[in-house]
Amino acid sequence: MTKLSSVLDRADQNIDDSLDRLFDLVRIRSISTDPAYRADCRKAAEWLVNCLADIGFDASVRDTAGHPMVVAHHPGATPDAPHVLFYGHYDVQPVDPVELWEDDPFAPAIKDAGNGRKVITGRGTADDKGQLMTFVEACRAYKEVHGSLPLRITILFEGEEESGSPSLKPFLEANADELKASYALVCDTSMWDSETPAIAAALRGLVGEEVTISAADRDLHSGLFGGAAANPIHILTEILAGLRDETGRVTLPGFYDGVEETPANIKASWEALGRTAETFLGEVGLSLPSGEKGRSVLELTWARPTCEVNGIWGGYTGEGFKTVIAARASAKVSFRLVGQQDPASIRESFRNYVRSRTPADCSVEFHEHGGSPAIQLSYDSPVLTKAKNALSEEWEKPAVVVGMGGSIPIVGDFQKMLGMESLLVGFGLVDDRIHSPNEKYDLKSFHKGIRSWIRIMDALAAK
Amino acid sequence: MTKLSSVLDRADQNIDDSLDRLFDLVRIRSISTDPAYRADCRKAAEWLVNCLADIGFDASVRDTAGHPMVVAHHPGATPDAPHVLFYGHYDVQPVDPVELWEDDPFAPAIKDAGNGRKVITGRGTADDKGQLMTFVEACRAYKEVHGSLPLRITILFEGEEESGSPSLKPFLEANADELKASYALVCDTSMWDSETPAIAAALRGLVGEEVTISAADRDLHSGLFGGAAANPIHILTEILAGLRDETGRVTLPGFYDGVEETPANIKASWEALGRTAETFLGEVGLSLPSGEKGRSVLELTWARPTCEVNGIWGGYTGEGFKTVIAARASAKVSFRLVGQQDPASIRESFRNYVRSRTPADCSVEFHEHGGSPAIQLSYDSPVLTKAKNALSEEWEKPAVVVGMGGSIPIVGDFQKMLGMESLLVGFGLVDDRIHSPNEKYDLKSFHKGIRSWIRIMDALAAK
Repeated sequence: MTKLSSVLDRADQNIDDSLDRLFDLVRIRSISTDPAYRADCRKAAEWLVNCLADIGFDASVRDTAGHPMVVAHHPGATPDAPHVLFYGHYDVQPVDPVELWEDDPFAPAIKDAGNGRKVITGRGTADDKGQLMTFVEACRAYKEVHGSLPLRITILFEGEEESGSPSLKPFLEANADELKASYALVCDTSMWDSETPAIAAALRGLVGEEVTISAADRDLHSGLFGGAAANPIHILTEILAGLRDETGRVTLPGFYDGVEETPANIKASWEALGRTAETFLGEVGLSLPSGEKGRSVLELTWARPTCEVNGIWGGYTGEGFKTVIAARASAKVSFRLVGQQDPASIRESFRNYVRSRTPADCSVEFHEHGGSPAIQLSYDSPVLTKAKNALSEEWEKPAVVVGMGGSIPIVGDFQKMLGMESLLVGFGLVDDRIHSPNEKYDLKSFHKGIRSWIRIMDALAAK
Repeated sequence: MTKLSSVLDRADQNIDDSLDRLFDLVRIRSISTDPAYRADCRKAAEWLVNCLADIGFDASVRDTAGHPMVVAHHPGATPDAPHVLFYGHYDVQPVDPVELWEDDPFAPAIKDAGNGRKVITGRGTADDKGQLMTFVEACRAYKEVHGSLPLRITILFEGEEESGSPSLKPFLEANADELKASYALVCDTSMWDSETPAIAAALRGLVGEEVTISAADRDLHSGLFGGAAANPIHILTEILAGLRDETGRVTLPGFYDGVEETPANIKASWEALGRTAETFLGEVGLSLPSGEKGRSVLELTWARPTCEVNGIWGGYTGEGFKTVIAARASAKVSFRLVGQQDPASIRESFRNYVRSRTPADCSVEFHEHGGSPAIQLSYDSPVLTKAKNALSEEWEKPAVVVGMGGSIPIVGDFQKMLGMESLLVGFGLVDDRIHSPNEKYDLKSFHKGIRSWIRIMDALAAK
């Protein structure tokens, strides 16, 4: 038996205990965006420190102005073993609307999903607790078999990824020497499909904004004032509707500065993957592509910028009816960025646009919710090639290199602040319902995810 | 001392007890639109029955499919005394956002409002509990002095006025013989200003609609799906923004059918009242008229139809940020109607418009929230003239005949179903904040309101 297969076997033997540990972590309600769950976030960090210490890491909870970081170190088996930084996040999204969950979001369980498929249910199982635990459990199996790890490993888990990571940059800056490694491993992305592993080499950036339009100094009766007084919901809907033209392009001045057309050969390789609007949107009950006209869904979600309204509220929203003209109305708006789009310029262009459309007797307030540029990683580095081969062996299917519609701002921070490229490997699936009710993570993703990291660590350690 | 002045004196002597009774009624949380307050609505009806029985009315709580009605009868002093139906409503608006109230909305109090002005604070003090109690207390004073009432009086109090009055038409139909009188007295309107009494002769109608756009079968991650999947908030904001053109006119086909220009002499009399955009909107912190261009604020609020969005919600609206594409988004929309506009046609035109703008892979649901045509009453009937003179005597200033921007659908139902015109007299003020936090009713409105009804009853009873 080779050394590698012994570790893989150990991971198989450990799987029930590995699941127990994941369940313990999922039970902790670490919703970072809601201050009511502050203590739960700390509890998740402490749980991870204990878990890592148990494997032999030198692990600690590190305070920040927000939720704490977890930092852990483990030497490699040899002094010249490569040094990697593994990153994940222990915080999760809010669970509302909670009435749409089939089960308590914080009571994880294994459920049969048909066709012999089993899934792990609960908030954070896929984003990102289940994913980060694939790496931790890979380390555990390796350590148990060999008494050592093949790489020198630093771990960084943050607790603010779902709320804009306000403490991350100051923390990277203050601890750059401690955290810098040869490259970073990040496990917060998806497979191409349930059988095909994927490595992400392009990530969209993000600008998040909250805008509130205020009109009268109180709510008004729409009978007494309707037709004469400004209605902030009208102003807001007109502003939001005007953000896109009839071709689906965003209308903000300068918005497309730094956006380049995707090279023809890359487009061709994406087309070969065979994802159509029908198959992609069909999984969520839709069929017609929205957004910019004349582009494939892969291009729309990987290589084109967007503007999405993520939330809107104003006036009476309870049962029944109330003939009110609200004093104010608000929306949360996000822009996904690609290429060289500059988050600060786009935020300013948005704000100027909103101000220009707000009547002189009304006022507007903005609140910033994070911003990060898009990321483009190398398509053919040695690290990527080793990982690609390791994944292909585990899944018995060639791994594909893809773009990602989502944003993982830390990858840009690692580039800029620590001079370190990232390898983005994850085992999520498109139907995991991350950020939605009934989030799940496939048991196969978890189990083969652990095995995948064992193979990747082994491959990265090889000369 | 004349008989009339004895009754007015009695009303003055009673005022502290009259306030105590009003406070008792205001303390009952009779929010009709919210099912959580169902028992409170019944309690308010029962309280009114006891109050009326105490004066000598034959009063009863009458069940409906919704909140109960109160019906009461009292004979006139002579067999040929005119028969009037007095109408008011005991239900109140919701109190949210409750944090904006300076005091508990259901703990009424007398407060000093400066310049020697005193106000009664609490939800429903002006709309409509304080107003209906002016009539009840007028009856009480009259009865105490004379042992009789000058008119044959039927009273109808409903408990669903703030939630579209679903039970009203069936109740009027089933009890037409019992409720029909020579004419109706309605106390749910405002003074022209704090010194000038007013009688309303025109009321706008109302169509209330709730619309929900559904797109994907679940909430989506805006990174994974943004730019490709339909966002129902985008669809909804585009639909709502498209309801009005750049001149402020409503774009629905056929919307202005039945809308006539106000006659020049009426417009001239309104202009003589001297209300400008600056004075009218200045009271609520605004200055620029919204809605149709080139029309005065009185014309906009009394004689022109409107479309107002009264509430909107969708996606993530909590603290922080959530990069979600919502599965659905909703709005509550109301149209104020004038002239001969037909509520059913306008509802249908709105629904067709929304359907035509909803993508084929999305769906739309509608929910009806009441509908009533506009009302135009006589400007010079004998009843109106008598009431006008009585009001002018009490307030020592000529009463004015005005239009009203709000809707009192029952006035149309009285016309159509019971063949009965209404006399609309009320003592509200523009700064009463009805439907808003910190609702109040001037103590002077309440006290002189009671005295006004005594004078009106006396005048209507005179040959």
